[in-house]
Amino acid sequence: MALKKKPTTGMRDILPEEMRIREYVLDMIRKTYRTYGFTQIETPAVEHIENLTGGHGGENEKLIFKILKRGQKLDLERAKSEEDLVDGGLRFDLTVPLCRFYAAHQAELSSPFKALQMGNVWRADRPQRGRFRQFMQCDIDILGEASKIAEIELISAMTTLLGKLDFSQFTIRINDRRILIGIADFCGFDKERQDEVFIILDKLDKIGIEGVKEELIESGFNDTAVEKCLDIFNDVSKTGDEAGSGIIGADDLKKLADKLGDSLEDGVSENLLSIIETVDAMRQCEFKIEFDPTLVRGMSYYTGPIFEIAMDEYGGSVGGGGRYDTMIGRFVGTDTPACGFSIGFERIAMLLMERGYQIPDEEKKYAFLIEKKCTDDQIKQVISKANELRSAGNTVTIDRLKKNKKFQKEQLAALGYDNIEEIFAD
Amino acid sequence: MALKKKPTTGMRDILPEEMRIREYVLDMIRKTYRTYGFTQIETPAVEHIENLTGGHGGENEKLIFKILKRGQKLDLERAKSEEDLVDGGLRFDLTVPLCRFYAAHQAELSSPFKALQMGNVWRADRPQRGRFRQFMQCDIDILGEASKIAEIELISAMTTLLGKLDFSQFTIRINDRRILIGIADFCGFDKERQDEVFIILDKLDKIGIEGVKEELIESGFNDTAVEKCLDIFNDVSKTGDEAGSGIIGADDLKKLADKLGDSLEDGVSENLLSIIETVDAMRQCEFKIEFDPTLVRGMSYYTGPIFEIAMDEYGGSVGGGGRYDTMIGRFVGTDTPACGFSIGFERIAMLLMERGYQIPDEEKKYAFLIEKKCTDDQIKQVISKANELRSAGNTVTIDRLKKNKKFQKEQLAALGYDNIEEIFAD
Repeated sequence: MALKKKPTTGMRDILPEEMRIREYVLDMIRKTYRTYGFTQIETPAVEHIENLTGGHGGENEKLIFKILKRGQKLDLERAKSEEDLVDGGLRFDLTVPLCRFYAAHQAELSSPFKALQMGNVWRADRPQRGRFRQFMQCDIDILGEASKIAEIELISAMTTLLGKLDFSQFTIRINDRRILIGIADFCGFDKERQDEVFIILDKLDKIGIEGVKEELIESGFNDTAVEKCLDIFNDVSKTGDEAGSGIIGADDLKKLADKLGDSLEDGVSENLLSIIETVDAMRQCEFKIEFDPTLVRGMSYYTGPIFEIAMDEYGGSVGGGGRYDTMIGRFVGTDTPACGFSIGFERIAMLLMERGYQIPDEEKKYAFLIEKKCTDDQIKQVISKANELRSAGNTVTIDRLKKNKKFQKEQLAALGYDNIEEIFAD
Repeated sequence: MALKKKPTTGMRDILPEEMRIREYVLDMIRKTYRTYGFTQIETPAVEHIENLTGGHGGENEKLIFKILKRGQKLDLERAKSEEDLVDGGLRFDLTVPLCRFYAAHQAELSSPFKALQMGNVWRADRPQRGRFRQFMQCDIDILGEASKIAEIELISAMTTLLGKLDFSQFTIRINDRRILIGIADFCGFDKERQDEVFIILDKLDKIGIEGVKEELIESGFNDTAVEKCLDIFNDVSKTGDEAGSGIIGADDLKKLADKLGDSLEDGVSENLLSIIETVDAMRQCEFKIEFDPTLVRGMSYYTGPIFEIAMDEYGGSVGGGGRYDTMIGRFVGTDTPACGFSIGFERIAMLLMERGYQIPDEEKKYAFLIEKKCTDDQIKQVISKANELRSAGNTVTIDRLKKNKKFQKEQLAALGYDNIEEIFAD
């Protein structure tokens, strides 16, 4: 019988030391978000295959772990395609299940409904260093709130959380999907190919303005539209605004709105500016908030403000979110305003591990090592003492004293057991 | 596009009210077990299909959710059986993955290794009321400890936990797999059919001694063996032992050991008695511990003491475990002593829900309802106040004041928001 020791391809085991940090972060997420009125819910790991392949998952729909139908014996001879064999899959995010959840339970939920979800998701990505096929997501979403209050509360909760985990010096990049559409309209890009334009724009940081120009032209977009578009981004200076504030690019936002004129939906720039100023004024730790018209975010379901946290320490995004007012409508029939934020839990936990983060207020750890010849009465005495210490919140392990007690004690010390006592037979 | 609102067959969504109790219980489990020196680990939900079908899962092996191979395009025409399509499955328990984990990471772990696992498992059971195809398991295991210290620590941790969750008046039923083997040997049952005998014995509580007799005879067991076996169980009186103690059946254990004589492995009854007496003496809440020679527990991998918690309130088992000293050997090559306990998390959570359990020390909840016409400055003032309250550990939700504010306030009150303040435009 060949049993396999390694985890399945692309997945991993988590050992105690890392688990301790993860649990600490999860607990902090739970406690912090709770103070903002978010309540936890859970959906099954297995989702209907129809819901997963409904067109909301983007590239993730190609990465689904599919589950064989249960029940009647599989009829392999008659099965013509995967659809004959499969009726479920492992969820690839928490947003699709949340929309299904809301559709199923709307009548039992308060409005607005502020949901916290913490759970694993699965994507059959090509295995690579630091990315795994099972990973934890922690999402907060406000369903049923159409106004900026939702964005402000989400960003406020998320920044408070990062502050509590000793992160600072991060930047919230923010944009609005409707500004992107305004730009595309203004420049005269074909309505149907706007998503393509956005995807190329998203690369501005990496390939520069000349690179963007090249790609747009190569993709066959009209020269005039491309020139108009580049002009806009040449104007965006990304200089700090008022001294002392954490805002970057508010002036650019105003200039851009003026330029776009009627191409931009009414109220969009004012709404975004108000979110930016309120978030900045309410800061509880050091961070910047930057209007970034090149921020796109991958998912096409976004309909309003979108945002992302950039952290220098990591050199990438450690979370993001935005407004998606039409997605729930696909389950319910009528649209429900919705706005969510997903923190990059795995990256946050990794950064803390790499920093050698020390969890504050760790409890004391005692080890009692009982020689084999000890009587039951001696064992009882040790347990009594241990129980007292445990009641007071300490960690106590009771183990047999081993022959190689030097090594045993070294192992315990490495686990943080400072107080080690040996108990010998009377 | 037909999107489905209900969860997949046999699985369920968990709403905030229930989730709150579950998270409370999970937190209590984590904290309590931690004081006993257990450290948390995690294994992937997806396990190698070979490991799941290796013969350790008993009936559960028939209930596996199987996952289609990823990578090359599925070749349905050439696929002759499921094995050609499937290489993984969702784990049906936490014990098989734990053994694989230990085999893979032994060198990095302390010895003994005290593991806590909390995670979902999946079984494609026939859907029925109160049983779901995804459910949470919470296991503690001590690997590398051959002595009774392991059993005593596991039972002690588990009873302390139940006490903290306000359970009492439960009974720990305890037996030893080697006593069952001793009985079977003593009576002269065929070595190869002993497991069948045990399964019938297990029904004694339900079908009575006459029922057991009938089934044994019907199954074709030898009359003499059956008579000898029934004599043994007629002798077991299950009366209380010493007054004031929580022990039941210790005298029966001694009588049985005398009767079995050489059929029983040396030291087994003394070891079990010592566990029973120590656990009783160290009780931290009201419970009984009962030697029950009819306790079998389903899994054939047990090799020593086995135990189960019976709760009158529930009328069934709310957790169980035992020693399995040979299972890790199938992964590692050499046997490693192991002993574990799995609490019936879903049942515990259900019992607390049914009781209307009140979580102690709930925080205060404030709602600030902002009229739509309020200025940004007013919003900032509200957020400032909210942040102060949140820093002090309170829950504060900031929502828009709705037109139907009576209904809005009723919903909030139902969620426990006692302090509701409306903010109107100046």
